[in-house]
Amino acid sequence: MNTSSYKPPEISFTNRQAKLNHLLQSSGLNSLILNAGPSLIYLTGLHFHISERPVLVFFIPNEVPMIVLPELEKEKLNNLPYNMNSFLYGEQPHLWNRVVAQAVKSARIKGKRNGIEPRQLRFLEFRLLLNSAELEDFTPADECISKLRMRKEEAELSAMRKAAWIAEQALTATLPFVKIGMSERELAAELTLQLYRAGCDPELAFSPIVSSGPNSANPHATPSDRILTNGDLLVIDWGASYMGYQSDITRTFRIGEIEPEFMQIGKIVLKANTSGRNTAKPGITAASIDKATRAVIESAGYGKFFTHRTGHGLGMEGHEEPYIRADNLMPLETGMTFTIEPGIYMPGRNGVRIEDDVVISETGTECLTSLPREIIQLG
Amino acid sequence: MNTSSYKPPEISFTNRQAKLNHLLQSSGLNSLILNAGPSLIYLTGLHFHISERPVLVFFIPNEVPMIVLPELEKEKLNNLPYNMNSFLYGEQPHLWNRVVAQAVKSARIKGKRNGIEPRQLRFLEFRLLLNSAELEDFTPADECISKLRMRKEEAELSAMRKAAWIAEQALTATLPFVKIGMSERELAAELTLQLYRAGCDPELAFSPIVSSGPNSANPHATPSDRILTNGDLLVIDWGASYMGYQSDITRTFRIGEIEPEFMQIGKIVLKANTSGRNTAKPGITAASIDKATRAVIESAGYGKFFTHRTGHGLGMEGHEEPYIRADNLMPLETGMTFTIEPGIYMPGRNGVRIEDDVVISETGTECLTSLPREIIQLG
Repeated sequence: MNTSSYKPPEISFTNRQAKLNHLLQSSGLNSLILNAGPSLIYLTGLHFHISERPVLVFFIPNEVPMIVLPELEKEKLNNLPYNMNSFLYGEQPHLWNRVVAQAVKSARIKGKRNGIEPRQLRFLEFRLLLNSAELEDFTPADECISKLRMRKEEAELSAMRKAAWIAEQALTATLPFVKIGMSERELAAELTLQLYRAGCDPELAFSPIVSSGPNSANPHATPSDRILTNGDLLVIDWGASYMGYQSDITRTFRIGEIEPEFMQIGKIVLKANTSGRNTAKPGITAASIDKATRAVIESAGYGKFFTHRTGHGLGMEGHEEPYIRADNLMPLETGMTFTIEPGIYMPGRNGVRIEDDVVISETGTECLTSLPREIIQLG
Repeated sequence: MNTSSYKPPEISFTNRQAKLNHLLQSSGLNSLILNAGPSLIYLTGLHFHISERPVLVFFIPNEVPMIVLPELEKEKLNNLPYNMNSFLYGEQPHLWNRVVAQAVKSARIKGKRNGIEPRQLRFLEFRLLLNSAELEDFTPADECISKLRMRKEEAELSAMRKAAWIAEQALTATLPFVKIGMSERELAAELTLQLYRAGCDPELAFSPIVSSGPNSANPHATPSDRILTNGDLLVIDWGASYMGYQSDITRTFRIGEIEPEFMQIGKIVLKANTSGRNTAKPGITAASIDKATRAVIESAGYGKFFTHRTGHGLGMEGHEEPYIRADNLMPLETGMTFTIEPGIYMPGRNGVRIEDDVVISETGTECLTSLPREIIQLG
């Protein structure tokens, strides 16, 4: 990958804000009120840690956005490429109420229908809006936000390709270290180190899952002190972050010789993964991809051991819309990015998962991930 | 530090839950309802990522705790060293309401006074409690939770000492790389890599702040492409995580020769830091530590350039109680852990901050951090 001469397209926050305004108006919302998090970064480029100090931003069609934030963060508002009105507070929490009330007054949204983000908004900020500012109508705006963010711009896809590349480089550099007698935790630490060496952002969206033997039968295992042992399957689920965009990949390996049934299961999961990737294209529903992977596993007789949805959207967040689930009848559109990750988990024995990241292209899909998907022997 | 023969004391979740029950009863609360996060880990050892899938745990005095969680996480409930009743849901979000309603019914807390954690509870979970389970009285339980977690147990202090040690090792390994012409971002990446090499947990509480020249005058700067230049001050604010416990340190360096005023400012901030560390002991209020550092900076004529509180509690979270703020009249107790981090920020020019981590001991304080605090020349 030659990245030296490549310059991704510019991001226009003004365009994104204008797009939001249209979406708010067509959803019958008078405002969108966000706290710190990916949607705020998407719309403004402003990064804040979720902390004990509240941050609130009000987007109102045809108005300059307003921000409530701690005075010691005000430098972040210098040289923004758009207008923003600020309401600052000092180091005394008892003043939060007053400052939020001022912002809401200036926003003229009392008695209006205000959109919020249920996965991000905390009781801390919600309570300020409810009590100090006497807002009443809070409407979940998930749909509006996902419509805004789901179809990735070229600059975003470029970052996602790089995030996938970094993750694959890191795993490739880690595999030679894997041997019988190593613990899951040691392997996870080495992989983390290699992620940073390959150019990962300082903040990972999630720390690697390294699970072996019976632990691999738990899709959401945490790396433990368990030692890699002959006959284990080894599930590695990891990802990188690049310029705030995520990758999320899973490959399954074997340590020495494994039971023949698991070689077979590896082939079934690969067939399910391939079927999912081949099904994805514009106009197809998310549900039909789930159906495509699940059908393969069910017809092989392992349906009840595929215990989760087929995948999830991927972008600034590790999990976002579109969810690749049996009940999601949303048609997929060009630019949508998500994982395809079927698995078979045999409790107390072993598990297999194979996960790729794809983007819906004009004619089908582009797969962002390319490492071999077969159950390779290590150790 | 010889850690090979040292085994930290065991953690007893049963004891912590019993302590919570007493605190709930003395606060007039009938329950504490938590979602995923540090307080839940503290009470149960259960780690979940904050995700699009809700997790709720109900603690009720004299009852077995109850958990609502996704079926695919249920393996985490195996072999818990205490009892826990579970309410599981599959991959269909429309079933969340029903499962939460069942848990609340079984908990018999409808019409009761229920404690929640405003900094953690999201609208996602709050809405489920409000709508499906028809709970009404939600009372912020911050005080109850901070009373539970503020005084660290020996096992926690042991992890915090190691987190400080890892951070200091990592910086020491990074400094030889610092030179004129390097960017803030490159330096932050090298420091991150060294943190993992020194044994940091896969998940950092915060990514390093590396800010130089005018950027160092912004206490919450993000590493940029700015190049280290002769005459810069360089603020590095970084920390490690070990077994889920944090360190958080700041040191300020100079690149070549700096203006004499900034050498003087470095001495003033060091004096303020020392004054804060010497003031801290059992029975002293948080406010009096803030007063001790601020008095030094004010008497030197830089009061208005010390724009933030003196520090914050530190433990499982990067920022937690006790906050070292002028309006916090809470007396400090043995086992409380926090930062002391005075700073002077001259807008458009340079900034200095010196931050240490301390624990209140029987007689005064133990300082967990030990790197030199003077403005050392690099590059």
